Amino acid sequence: MNGADALISTLVANEVTACFANPGTSEMQFVAALDGVPQMRPVLCLFEGVATGAADGYGRIADRPACTLLHLGPGYGNGVANLHNARRAFTPIVNVVGDHATYHRQYDAPLNSDIATLVKPNSIWVKSADAPDQVSALAAEAVAASYGPPGGPVSLILPADSAWLEAKGGPVIAQKPVRPAPSGEAVDAAARALRAARKPVVLLGNQACRAEALKEAARLEAAGITVYSDTFVPRQRRGAGTFLPKKMQYFGEMALSELEGVDLMVLVGTAMPVAFFAYPNRPSVLVPEGCETLTLAERSEDSVVGLAALADALGAPKEGPVQPLVLPDAAPTGGLNAYFAGASIARHMPEDAIVCDDAVTSGTGVAVGTATARPHDLLALTGGAIGIGLPLAVGAAVAAPDRKVISLNGDGAAMYTVQALWTMARENLDVTTVVFANNTYRILNVEMTRTGAGQAGPAAARLLDLGDPAIDWVSMAKAMGIPAVRCTTAEEFDKAFADAVAQRGPMFIEAVI
Amino acid sequence: MNGADALISTLVANEVTACFANPGTSEMQFVAALDGVPQMRPVLCLFEGVATGAADGYGRIADRPACTLLHLGPGYGNGVANLHNARRAFTPIVNVVGDHATYHRQYDAPLNSDIATLVKPNSIWVKSADAPDQVSALAAEAVAASYGPPGGPVSLILPADSAWLEAKGGPVIAQKPVRPAPSGEAVDAAARALRAARKPVVLLGNQACRAEALKEAARLEAAGITVYSDTFVPRQRRGAGTFLPKKMQYFGEMALSELEGVDLMVLVGTAMPVAFFAYPNRPSVLVPEGCETLTLAERSEDSVVGLAALADALGAPKEGPVQPLVLPDAAPTGGLNAYFAGASIARHMPEDAIVCDDAVTSGTGVAVGTATARPHDLLALTGGAIGIGLPLAVGAAVAAPDRKVISLNGDGAAMYTVQALWTMARENLDVTTVVFANNTYRILNVEMTRTGAGQAGPAAARLLDLGDPAIDWVSMAKAMGIPAVRCTTAEEFDKAFADAVAQRGPMFIEAVI
Repeated sequence: MNGADALISTLVANEVTACFANPGTSEMQFVAALDGVPQMRPVLCLFEGVATGAADGYGRIADRPACTLLHLGPGYGNGVANLHNARRAFTPIVNVVGDHATYHRQYDAPLNSDIATLVKPNSIWVKSADAPDQVSALAAEAVAASYGPPGGPVSLILPADSAWLEAKGGPVIAQKPVRPAPSGEAVDAAARALRAARKPVVLLGNQACRAEALKEAARLEAAGITVYSDTFVPRQRRGAGTFLPKKMQYFGEMALSELEGVDLMVLVGTAMPVAFFAYPNRPSVLVPEGCETLTLAERSEDSVVGLAALADALGAPKEGPVQPLVLPDAAPTGGLNAYFAGASIARHMPEDAIVCDDAVTSGTGVAVGTATARPHDLLALTGGAIGIGLPLAVGAAVAAPDRKVISLNGDGAAMYTVQALWTMARENLDVTTVVFANNTYRILNVEMTRTGAGQAGPAAARLLDLGDPAIDWVSMAKAMGIPAVRCTTAEEFDKAFADAVAQRGPMFIEAVI
Repeated sequence: MNGADALISTLVANEVTACFANPGTSEMQFVAALDGVPQMRPVLCLFEGVATGAADGYGRIADRPACTLLHLGPGYGNGVANLHNARRAFTPIVNVVGDHATYHRQYDAPLNSDIATLVKPNSIWVKSADAPDQVSALAAEAVAASYGPPGGPVSLILPADSAWLEAKGGPVIAQKPVRPAPSGEAVDAAARALRAARKPVVLLGNQACRAEALKEAARLEAAGITVYSDTFVPRQRRGAGTFLPKKMQYFGEMALSELEGVDLMVLVGTAMPVAFFAYPNRPSVLVPEGCETLTLAERSEDSVVGLAALADALGAPKEGPVQPLVLPDAAPTGGLNAYFAGASIARHMPEDAIVCDDAVTSGTGVAVGTATARPHDLLALTGGAIGIGLPLAVGAAVAAPDRKVISLNGDGAAMYTVQALWTMARENLDVTTVVFANNTYRILNVEMTRTGAGQAGPAAARLLDLGDPAIDWVSMAKAMGIPAVRCTTAEEFDKAFADAVAQRGPMFIEAVI
């Protein structure tokens, strides 16, 4: 058994069974070793940003890490943006970053770079397996570290000689860390503060937006406390039968205006809310003046236990409000927009679908329609780095082959990691992709004014415009082997979406809005 | 004048007049300021790897930096791989990396990350302009730093408030550093050693492969010294009328076998040659046992002056050998391969073309044909991070609008930064793109055996295969607005290439090999 065999055996022994890969020469032993461990599913991605985003989608759905296989510093570099998103989603991911043989590093060959420094900002654990006998133990340590809590990407650097040399011993199993419950003091303090407050709110994030946690949070709402969720949540249960908290507004001044008079904010699985960006003369912190903040459960703690204990302490009802199932009877008609698309998605989306949202300005419109749709999971863009909607869908579909995956993307966002379409075709993943083609970075047209930069002149406007030339998305999808259709009316979209989700396998819809 | 105005004015005053951009909210002031400084040409790229690769191509041709405009850590991250290549090409580039407003950083908003650490491995200079009054001085310092010598990417972090607040003073001009001549001692030592050696070689890299340097190197060849160039050179003058040194072989054992008996290697503008990758039981250093190495000119020094002085010291002839103009009379016929493509490229490529080579295994075949073609510049993949062939061409075409640019790409490589095609269409760049579609990462099939990983099993083989589904490159190019044609025979390719280069503007050829 060489180091590569040891690595894959240990990963599999620790329940890491999917590998999103784009290998190079330094990773050839890892690639060769895959045939010896069929429990590991290799998935080829034609760009590393697809691999890392897919690992994020996989981790959010499977609740265990996938591994990535990346080619030295540049391969990791290509995956950085989606690892940033994954770090912000607290998704467990084990990056295997190939490196030159240990003795070859000193010669600074063309692909050499300072990998340890490059991976640092987006890794919650980094080690280099500089001898083959270290590989198994470090791989097990890496998997355990990726769980946190609250979890995140880790990076195991694998020099080529550690992969090709003989490794002693068998697979190493690591203890999966347990997410601790919040302290009784924290629960008591929150209960006391909530009883004393005039206008309290509870803010949920991360694990507190999963199905179990939302059941408990709904009890707080039933007890008269307004419950919010973070604007962007790694994985939120939504739709009929599920409690839908209000969402923190994206724009700070709107959030603060909505929160006016709130005197207590209890944080559950999240931190103090802050504006996504700074703007001249606008506040950074989205907590009203004089409002106390108090943490019930840290991100690293068990939000479900905390919320249940808090609801009990407050004598809240055993059940709280849930969304009804309300589906539009008929297809919307007329010119297509995101709200109409949302109505059609709600009409046809099957139960337990996974919705991956990188639709930027169109996402809000869709969310209106899906609020009362069949129950589903929504995976959002947690780190603000566009280009995750297609990769997330790849990973989610690999993690949950029996669930329909719906990938919603702005056109600007979809271009970032468009190579993901090929992997959907290659693996015949059950993903319906929608690209909202408005031919512009719409959000930036809004932000241009908000940042005080004024009206865009011709040069500036051209940097926000995607319409010259207009991207032919149907040709793009077909180029990578996915059947595709273009819709310009609400009726066309309704039919196309119904057709797409009725079939198994990758389908593509260009929604011209 | 706000900080953004100050920045662009200073860049322009220091001859930085092209900006390859993908902005976000934190860069809106920079974008707005572009309309006030028409000397700066903004070029929108739909992915940051295109922007950084284009800046590399621009810098190699213009011999002055372009700037990039990147959106915080993730935006920079997307550009890392091609900045790695640029660092290895010693190309001056000024990255402008937008950041949150200084006072907003502490809140760790979703897009926040440790930019200073992320940029370190691929930046030869990093500073953050944390006050608007620092912007001009730091921008000038950044430009100067990017020149080195030997030059490379620098990163200027620009917090949003430094861009939007009022900045005092006008543009700052920085002194462009001068590339020093090698010392007389180095020249004398090289001359002495060359006279004493039984079988000496000279190895050229970087600046020593430009036209002027090759003229002087040819004189050494005329004096009986074998002259080599590095395997991958940032910019090499090639073709008729130019001296063509032998090229260091890519595979180490072939390089060493060719160098057998060599007892002196004089390095000019490069460092000791090493193997691209390590392999079990194969050497890392590509200098034969007992061979002395000696540096005539460091990368930071003036290779032309050094080579001329050495040739004079050795009493070499005033002129050395140059390549003849030899073009195939007729189109090749039969099944298409890289050698036939090279013959057709040689037949039709106009004088002074710029060839951007990311064709991996096909590049070698093409180089045979172009060795005696009309004079041209060849830009190679210096850092081994595939996905630079299309972006390099974007940058080269912006830098030299009157020269025909030819972009040669492997299919695996082209997929990495395929978004570059859109920018070619948007800017109507005079680029003929060729993608060699062999439906596999061909090089890895070779490397799999060389690394001792053995024959690829079915799982491994699938990770090297691009043919399921086969990418429809004609649809891909058309999706982004470029006329495209698919060729399966040598005759078809000859005609398609002749047609493409006869027109102005972006054209695309899928070469099925």
